[in-house]
Amino acid sequence: MGLGIGDDAALCKTASGHDEILTCDWFLEGTHFLRDKHPPDAVGWKCLARAVSDVAAMGGVPRCFLLSLALPASHTGLWLDQFLGGLLRASKRFKCALAGGDTTRTREILINVTLVGEVKTGMAVLRSQARPGDVLFTSGRLGEAELGLEVIRKSKGRVDSRDPVLKKHLYPEPRLALGRWLGEKRLASAMMDLSDGLSTDLSRLCKASGVGARVEAPKILAVQVPKTGRTRRDNPLNLALHGGDDYELLFTVPRKKLKHVPSSFQGIPITAIGEITKERALLFIDETGRTAPLPNRGWDPFRNPLKKRFRLPG
Amino acid sequence: MGLGIGDDAALCKTASGHDEILTCDWFLEGTHFLRDKHPPDAVGWKCLARAVSDVAAMGGVPRCFLLSLALPASHTGLWLDQFLGGLLRASKRFKCALAGGDTTRTREILINVTLVGEVKTGMAVLRSQARPGDVLFTSGRLGEAELGLEVIRKSKGRVDSRDPVLKKHLYPEPRLALGRWLGEKRLASAMMDLSDGLSTDLSRLCKASGVGARVEAPKILAVQVPKTGRTRRDNPLNLALHGGDDYELLFTVPRKKLKHVPSSFQGIPITAIGEITKERALLFIDETGRTAPLPNRGWDPFRNPLKKRFRLPG
Repeated sequence: MGLGIGDDAALCKTASGHDEILTCDWFLEGTHFLRDKHPPDAVGWKCLARAVSDVAAMGGVPRCFLLSLALPASHTGLWLDQFLGGLLRASKRFKCALAGGDTTRTREILINVTLVGEVKTGMAVLRSQARPGDVLFTSGRLGEAELGLEVIRKSKGRVDSRDPVLKKHLYPEPRLALGRWLGEKRLASAMMDLSDGLSTDLSRLCKASGVGARVEAPKILAVQVPKTGRTRRDNPLNLALHGGDDYELLFTVPRKKLKHVPSSFQGIPITAIGEITKERALLFIDETGRTAPLPNRGWDPFRNPLKKRFRLPG
Repeated sequence: MGLGIGDDAALCKTASGHDEILTCDWFLEGTHFLRDKHPPDAVGWKCLARAVSDVAAMGGVPRCFLLSLALPASHTGLWLDQFLGGLLRASKRFKCALAGGDTTRTREILINVTLVGEVKTGMAVLRSQARPGDVLFTSGRLGEAELGLEVIRKSKGRVDSRDPVLKKHLYPEPRLALGRWLGEKRLASAMMDLSDGLSTDLSRLCKASGVGARVEAPKILAVQVPKTGRTRRDNPLNLALHGGDDYELLFTVPRKKLKHVPSSFQGIPITAIGEITKERALLFIDETGRTAPLPNRGWDPFRNPLKKRFRLPG
């Protein structure tokens, strides 16, 4: 796979009757992954998958991507080969071709992916259209990626990329088919992907829509934590509420369309976890039925960088 | 100026009858600029200007850009304000709006710009269409940016952004109007921008076109080096041949179209510096008339990172 094209820039074309979707995403050593712990193959897969997830969350289809890669000279051999292997698998899976890029040399591994996608004109699902009374849904099981991160945090050296507990953290599957279906059927009034944790992402969706939300704890489909090695941090509900990197979809559906929402889609559970409210607050009903404010404790790079979570210096 | 948009991705549309041009460019502390020497305003201007130059070099027009910015918390105040000031000026000058982005926190300042431009379908000028006999042209005066870099290298602390010797290095002007004119008049058979130095970029153009070139030293319009403070490195011809960051255009014109090429365009000199040859070698005719191979000594991040040129550790 070539790492770039011959010219100063790439040429492409959006299909007629479609809008283009553009997104760019950092994927940085020390902030988003650790050189000595994350398998290079997973770094390659995930840097593309998370950008694809942004397109899925608008109901779109990925088309091509640009890769900006900065590496130490020590990582231009085996590490780069494995990284490109994972990236190529993701590129094939998501039918999203490399269209160009830029490479340079640095001390730390820096990755930036620009993704180009498309959606039928006027069919993009935005964050800003949730309305009071809409029901709030999530796809999949929340907190699995965060549990994987916890396992990696406690591990010594590079982890086994085949460990099933790490699958969601290392090889997330953006919900492309579901996002597109929800958009084309006009079921979702608002949608976004869960990249920074439910509590943080829901507050963004509500802010963009000028609404609030009430989330019911017993309804949340949370990660199943293995009995062994549990710590206080591995509480399933906390992982589901505040854990990042799930790349599931968070969406709202008007009540009159509820009957069209299945309980699963291509094997992925779809779960109603609460509703949108007029009052602009995020409320949380816990297992005992008590209502309290939902604290925003997801991922915020300027509050809790991965380095800190990994308890590394710097 | 907002640093991003409300949704997971930006939506846009290419004008009908146009191809889209996509390019991404790193602009990294330590590799492309130095935090303590380069004015933040110039960092903002230049990170966009150099991406715009890639679009100019294809005969295109910029439309919008995505900004990926990673900063230490210490640089989210005054430094960021001044950076955004320079970026906003460039955005207005090049009629190229911010469409989205991604921000995160890091130890070093990392910038990546994705530029979206457009060109009439079939009118993009590529690197690969130079033919033997075509005359080789450059715009502007070469080596000025490298001289500015040398001055910065010798300075202590942050430089004065108004120093005229630094203008080309700090605030490059991509040759948008010239590139577009050469493309629309179908005068240029091949074109690229001079970002890494004439000797390096010419070898890329020749490789892409499967040709060679002969460059005549006396014809090159080189930087005028002030009498004071000259060093061995400040030889005008060496600066013009191997200095990077000029963001001038390098292009080839078939002989039958030569009469349509003016000696200047909107005040920018246009200079014939040699010709394309069938033999795949880069030859250089020096001031004494002697012919020798032209060594490829421009910018290569895996050979001569800025850190080394600045004689910094790391």
